[in-house]
Amino acid sequence: MTTHTHQTAPTQYVEANGIRFAYRRFGKAGPPPLVFNMHFTGTMDHWDPAVTDGFAKDREVVLFNNAGISSTSGEVPTSIEKMAANAAVFIKALRLAEVDVLGFSLGGLVAQELALAEPKLVRRPVLVGTGPRSGEGMASLTPEAQRIFGATYENPDDLWLGLFFTPSANSQAAGREYLRRFRLRTKNRDPEVNGGVASAQIEALGKWGAPRKRPYDYLKAICQPTLVVNGGNDVIIYSVNSFILQQHLPNAQLILYPDANHGSQYQYPELFVRHVSIFLS
Amino acid sequence: MTTHTHQTAPTQYVEANGIRFAYRRFGKAGPPPLVFNMHFTGTMDHWDPAVTDGFAKDREVVLFNNAGISSTSGEVPTSIEKMAANAAVFIKALRLAEVDVLGFSLGGLVAQELALAEPKLVRRPVLVGTGPRSGEGMASLTPEAQRIFGATYENPDDLWLGLFFTPSANSQAAGREYLRRFRLRTKNRDPEVNGGVASAQIEALGKWGAPRKRPYDYLKAICQPTLVVNGGNDVIIYSVNSFILQQHLPNAQLILYPDANHGSQYQYPELFVRHVSIFLS
Repeated sequence: MTTHTHQTAPTQYVEANGIRFAYRRFGKAGPPPLVFNMHFTGTMDHWDPAVTDGFAKDREVVLFNNAGISSTSGEVPTSIEKMAANAAVFIKALRLAEVDVLGFSLGGLVAQELALAEPKLVRRPVLVGTGPRSGEGMASLTPEAQRIFGATYENPDDLWLGLFFTPSANSQAAGREYLRRFRLRTKNRDPEVNGGVASAQIEALGKWGAPRKRPYDYLKAICQPTLVVNGGNDVIIYSVNSFILQQHLPNAQLILYPDANHGSQYQYPELFVRHVSIFLS
Repeated sequence: MTTHTHQTAPTQYVEANGIRFAYRRFGKAGPPPLVFNMHFTGTMDHWDPAVTDGFAKDREVVLFNNAGISSTSGEVPTSIEKMAANAAVFIKALRLAEVDVLGFSLGGLVAQELALAEPKLVRRPVLVGTGPRSGEGMASLTPEAQRIFGATYENPDDLWLGLFFTPSANSQAAGREYLRRFRLRTKNRDPEVNGGVASAQIEALGKWGAPRKRPYDYLKAICQPTLVVNGGNDVIIYSVNSFILQQHLPNAQLILYPDANHGSQYQYPELFVRHVSIFLS
């Protein structure tokens, strides 16, 4: 057990396969550590301390930047499968034999491929705000995402508030609380990602989302108990994709939260931690 | 607080609007009581003591037979709305000013109409194994339900095991445990329903399920925080109907359980009680 928290955990490094991975590790040792996989263009600093510290009370939390992201060296691959392979390299470099894996959005795609490729390493995946290969509206950005990413904002926070939260007063207020929390760490923050990250990730997302025959068949091979979580009003990766994941995974529980968009876990952090903790324990 | 349990709670009676309602009430006083609404042709004795006693640790549980069912007098109405009106009469006859309402299958339809008609009386509905007006496959019995109800069984338990549980070994084993539990009460059990009950309930189900224009609009008027729960493999009221409820209710959380059919709450009684208790508190 360390006394570190989301705010104080030092950024550490581990090298494997020629990549120097940056990571932070904190929380109570015992159960399999929970390894967090981040969304499009995000770094370790975009996680919500209400979520990470919430889990850290009962288990070790491992945040990391995958290859080519921020303080981690290497190139961002142009496929989700290769991102998952890099995540596996990282986890094994920490000499962890079994982990739980939480993935949000793009990180949820990585978590699926990781669970598929490494059934012994990944005990229980938690798939948040994400969808299956060739999911509904996933061949390209949804119209709503195009509008949100394409707009110009006087207040840059409005991009996050539109991406992760619904227009309701309650959701927007929760969003502002999230923005406040994820900026609480002031020392040794990660550098923002460089310009090449987005284009490689977009290429990977495009391959993942492209239509194909019997796209959901691969889910039958993810046999671990899996928890799928999303907001009921996700306009970035439509909520129906969470339902599709639950329907096609052999052993999945689904939780959808009310009046919540892509970032439901940041809107209801205590409830989310409670639900996921019940699932993991 | 009473010391009674599912097994020992006496059947009591209260009269209102010319109907003598049979009910049982037990559990810890404090929060709004949780009033259970039963499925097609079921009585108070079909509830699972692992569920009812599970809730009774923290709140009062009220089981009752609606009009015309088993030990309750009167006629079974041929519409869900009238069943809900009778349920409201019963709750008010107990002089309860605010309750939480759990409805399973047909009881979930009643719970919706009750929440709609009595927004002050019903604090939080819990809709289990149920669906909206004109839901998918709800215009008549699903093909699977026709097959299950139409078959002849050497062991009558196989009807319940097919209706409420999936064919998997795990689900069937959980089903046998449920059958064992719901028969544990040996004294003062309810009489089975008479022959007229099924036909009146089928008529009500038919009206509810019939196609209509904009069938889900009424859900916008159920403004209470609502929890929707089902198995991911419900073949009696298809699981997609739970997703539809969540999508159209203004403030609903959805939980779908893995490898579970219509009776998911009896397959995972402890988890179900835990999830619902979090939602209610």
